[in-house]
Amino acid sequence: MHKPETPTSNLLDSHPYLRQTLDLVADKWIVAALYVLSHGTKRYSELQREIGDISQRMLTRTLRDLERNGLIERQVYPVIPARVEYSLTPLGQTLSQVLKSLCEWSKVNFQDVEAARNQYDGAELD
Amino acid sequence: MHKPETPTSNLLDSHPYLRQTLDLVADKWIVAALYVLSHGTKRYSELQREIGDISQRMLTRTLRDLERNGLIERQVYPVIPARVEYSLTPLGQTLSQVLKSLCEWSKVNFQDVEAARNQYDGAELD
Repeated sequence: MHKPETPTSNLLDSHPYLRQTLDLVADKWIVAALYVLSHGTKRYSELQREIGDISQRMLTRTLRDLERNGLIERQVYPVIPARVEYSLTPLGQTLSQVLKSLCEWSKVNFQDVEAARNQYDGAELD
Repeated sequence: MHKPETPTSNLLDSHPYLRQTLDLVADKWIVAALYVLSHGTKRYSELQREIGDISQRMLTRTLRDLERNGLIERQVYPVIPARVEYSLTPLGQTLSQVLKSLCEWSKVNFQDVEAARNQYDGAELD
């Protein structure tokens, strides 16, 4: 029954970059921030408001992660109070494009997902 | 300093389906299973081997979630021992296509992400 393990057949191991990209985008705050920034440069307070239910601590961490990964850039203006703006880098823009396809998919298909859920949950009750 | 909250400007709230799709795919096992199944119908043991480092408990849960969301279908063959096969539904196939763009992006761009990380981490040490 148990075939020997064949490491070469491990599809994810053969795509190390995909695994790392999944680790990067498998975070809804990362995706949410990229999505909001795809609409243009934003200040910290604008990001907080447009993402909606994100804590200040989590937003700060998310923006730091995005900057570290080269996806956004942070511009600090030496005014009082300090003004900080965030925008997508060219790298962040290309990733954001892919994520927009995901947005498009969800608009077209999510009602089918919900219908499947209702059917599945209904069948369990029978 | 603090502008009043303007709920209508909340981009994510105005796309409820996107938020739900993000919740769905912001899970690396979900994405990994969809990716493996995009290469064709698989038995449970094949999925386990090809995903690689997933526990049996987590794989079972992931497959159940995917089935509930209408993205995969489970076919049970009445043989001994029971043979169970999983495959993408048409809905799962369209989502898998979008995720493939993400795979493509990672192949082309992940080296740039790594370069950005090294630069960021190096700057912190200065």
